[in-house]
Amino acid sequence: MADPTVEPELLAAARAVQANAHVPYSEFHVGAAIRTRSGAVFSGCNVENAAYPQGTCAEAGAIAAMCAAGEYDIDVLVTVCDGDLLSTPCGGCRQKIREFAHPGTMIHAAGPDGVRTSYTMDELLPDSFGPENLAR
Amino acid sequence: MADPTVEPELLAAARAVQANAHVPYSEFHVGAAIRTRSGAVFSGCNVENAAYPQGTCAEAGAIAAMCAAGEYDIDVLVTVCDGDLLSTPCGGCRQKIREFAHPGTMIHAAGPDGVRTSYTMDELLPDSFGPENLAR
Amino acid sequence: MADPTVEPELLAAARAVQANAHVPYSEFHVGAAIRTRSGAVFSGCNVENAAYPQGTCAEAGAIAAMCAAGEYDIDVLVTVCDGDLLSTPCGGCRQKIREFAHPGTMIHAAGPDGVRTSYTMDELLPDSFGPENLAR
Amino acid sequence: MADPTVEPELLAAARAVQANAHVPYSEFHVGAAIRTRSGAVFSGCNVENAAYPQGTCAEAGAIAAMCAAGEYDIDVLVTVCDGDLLSTPCGGCRQKIREFAHPGTMIHAAGPDGVRTSYTMDELLPDSFGPENLAR
Repeated sequence: MADPTVEPELLAAARAVQANAHVPYSEFHVGAAIRTRSGAVFSGCNVENAAYPQGTCAEAGAIAAMCAAGEYDIDVLVTVCDGDLLSTPCGGCRQKIREFAHPGTMIHAAGPDGVRTSYTMDELLPDSFGPENLAR
Repeated sequence: MADPTVEPELLAAARAVQANAHVPYSEFHVGAAIRTRSGAVFSGCNVENAAYPQGTCAEAGAIAAMCAAGEYDIDVLVTVCDGDLLSTPCGGCRQKIREFAHPGTMIHAAGPDGVRTSYTMDELLPDSFGPENLAR
Repeated sequence: MADPTVEPELLAAARAVQANAHVPYSEFHVGAAIRTRSGAVFSGCNVENAAYPQGTCAEAGAIAAMCAAGEYDIDVLVTVCDGDLLSTPCGGCRQKIREFAHPGTMIHAAGPDGVRTSYTMDELLPDSFGPENLAR
Repeated sequence: MADPTVEPELLAAARAVQANAHVPYSEFHVGAAIRTRSGAVFSGCNVENAAYPQGTCAEAGAIAAMCAAGEYDIDVLVTVCDGDLLSTPCGGCRQKIREFAHPGTMIHAAGPDGVRTSYTMDELLPDSFGPENLAR
């Protein structure tokens, strides 16, 4: 079912960092990689914390790396997890991606066998909350 | 467009706490109210923090009140915000609701004029990440 | 070593909600109770999430309950956990308490046998970051 | 009062990313840089989100970059903010640093004029909560 030919460069980047995830609590390794409009690639893994809410997801790490480099436009994001089930970005990460997404942003959820499902931003977070809601 | 006759009890509960939101940074007041399977109602407002990521959303407060009472099943959740735009739960809150949702859980997004849009859990957080993804 | 006579009312409130913690991932139950300047008591338990960073700590739940009631001044906070080790509020919770603390605010860390250690806010979070750092 | 000769390499790295912080809500730019035991340097800036609790602090970004590179030991961390006041890591970040700290880990809080105050991990987060509290 998975298609290993979708975004092979991002998938490889996501897999490379997935192995470095700090996950002593869940043992659930996640990697994420972003390609921005400029073509640059940024990646991140999940970093858990003994105080669970203080952990950060793989997507957050990739986004932080992107911003640190002065880039703010996500064209494509790939996540990769282990397991037989489809694992998509959690709601918190969907919101984090949305901050830097445009209507054409694509999110691909991959497993060990390649990309399993692909989404537009709006498919993953329909009728989203965003910066315009805070405008006074 | 808004329908003030949808879930009037929950809407009133959400409005009552909305006024108490601690929002010195965004000035964006949000209230949320839950009805569980037992028929009990729990509510919460957003609580911001000078260290922004340490704030908590209204939905999180309502869910914490629900769990504190020993209840874990959300039948209906209503959020209420000010402003002309439709404001829905952020992605993080969609994930928090999902932890305690069932296929029939309804989420209603309200403004000052009443409920503006209604969603099932799956409509707000399609193909969601959840506890089954962590099963080893 | 623990002193069961310190803040018995708050300790009882914290223990009552501790039992209701939603902790399928860590199995680490925490309860927290606050007394505000008005004398009112608010409590909360930790609420974990399959997406770990979306969970909320017990202190966050108690603070959300406090704000929902229109109160914003923490005089005393008690946390209770199981285990032989002293368990204090995580750094995130110290920051959350600090938002509503004053110089005399006391935080007591309890175990099954009662309060084990007591702190002022400044002892738990010295030289803290706070609202004044954001003033423009 | 500030000492510009303390950790000049880390301070420069933190300043370089501080300029890239995504802070449309607070307009409070923060940069952080870490040196690990191996001597490698990692940096990050704060990344805010319209849903405030979904933002991430500069320290979290630097830590995510460190883990992505397969490193997990923080020897020194420097944060830099603007403003006349001393700005230290928030409690949440103190907890995040603590996950990868050792007794000799140093944290330096800098302003535009250089490092203003220096702390050991234990000074910033005394009697901390950590992994050992979760051991069953």
